[in-house]
Amino acid sequence: MTEPLARAAQDQLFRMARTRNAFSDKPVSDALLRELYDLLKWGPTSGNVCPARFVFLTTPQAKARLAPLMSRANRGKAIGAAVQAIVAYDLKFADKIPELFPHNPGSAAWFADPAVAEETAFRNGSLQGAYLILAARTLGLDCGPMSGFDRAGVDAEFFAGTTWRSNFLCNIGYGTDEAMFERLPRLAFEDACEVL
Amino acid sequence: MTEPLARAAQDQLFRMARTRNAFSDKPVSDALLRELYDLLKWGPTSGNVCPARFVFLTTPQAKARLAPLMSRANRGKAIGAAVQAIVAYDLKFADKIPELFPHNPGSAAWFADPAVAEETAFRNGSLQGAYLILAARTLGLDCGPMSGFDRAGVDAEFFAGTTWRSNFLCNIGYGTDEAMFERLPRLAFEDACEVL
Repeated sequence: MTEPLARAAQDQLFRMARTRNAFSDKPVSDALLRELYDLLKWGPTSGNVCPARFVFLTTPQAKARLAPLMSRANRGKAIGAAVQAIVAYDLKFADKIPELFPHNPGSAAWFADPAVAEETAFRNGSLQGAYLILAARTLGLDCGPMSGFDRAGVDAEFFAGTTWRSNFLCNIGYGTDEAMFERLPRLAFEDACEVL
Repeated sequence: MTEPLARAAQDQLFRMARTRNAFSDKPVSDALLRELYDLLKWGPTSGNVCPARFVFLTTPQAKARLAPLMSRANRGKAIGAAVQAIVAYDLKFADKIPELFPHNPGSAAWFADPAVAEETAFRNGSLQGAYLILAARTLGLDCGPMSGFDRAGVDAEFFAGTTWRSNFLCNIGYGTDEAMFERLPRLAFEDACEVL
């Protein structure tokens, strides 16, 4: 039987973790990005479809391609992040099913309808985006996830001619307290949950 | 500067955590469900919209309402789980914005378009579904998330006349190794990630 993690670990993952809007200049190595992926990849997805794709922008040249496609407010938050990640998903994730679900490669047929494929990619790609955030916190990194950007523009700039689609952006690095919001409230249990 | 969590904690959250298809008879108290929500609620959402809603089925009567709406394979996996959760989202999440984003209640207007509201609810409600899974693991619980069910049927049975919509199901309890799958492969870094 597994025990709860220590309170300090719970705090690091959830209670004390904060969305960061500014970052120190401490770098994030390519090796650490691999460690991050090698942790988040274990999170569960439906039928092990693993539709998320991650583009890690680490160079000034790559970041300059993304900057004009962010909302003005988000552009300011991304400046200084060691890594700006585009959390995306592959609409043709089913092509990988023979590798990912080898005991039942025929499960690819479940996703033959493009609407089902898109819903599955969006749901499970979003789950994996959350695994990215929590895996980053597990590794002592801070995140700044952002939805305010031109999705079609990012798809045209980074994914033209492919079946990858952008979902959300996530700044990754070592956060500072600068420009951080007050901790915002959350819904009471009674407003968000029912027990039947 | 935050440090990485200890290897054992990383394992509990990601590397050794497994989707469970069978559960012991150890109960999950209502108090523990509140602790679970009070942890997962801190995960970030866009504009702090917090659209996810969670229905925790704990009684045989409530579970009997869900059983016929699951795929046959999933019905077998859910039997014995102390809690069967319906992870849902509220399409009218923006009604809570004055409470959740008090410095800018006008942000509710960002979601006036129903298509934008639905996309936002689905993306962020899915993120929060992943926070549920990882918060459960943080607390020593095991999960069995499932997408194979009749979404429209669940909405009709549990959410008729409301703006809540089902997203996925998640069994929660203390897992056993019975009926557990082999650990399935994951995509290589090179197939899922780009570094630019």
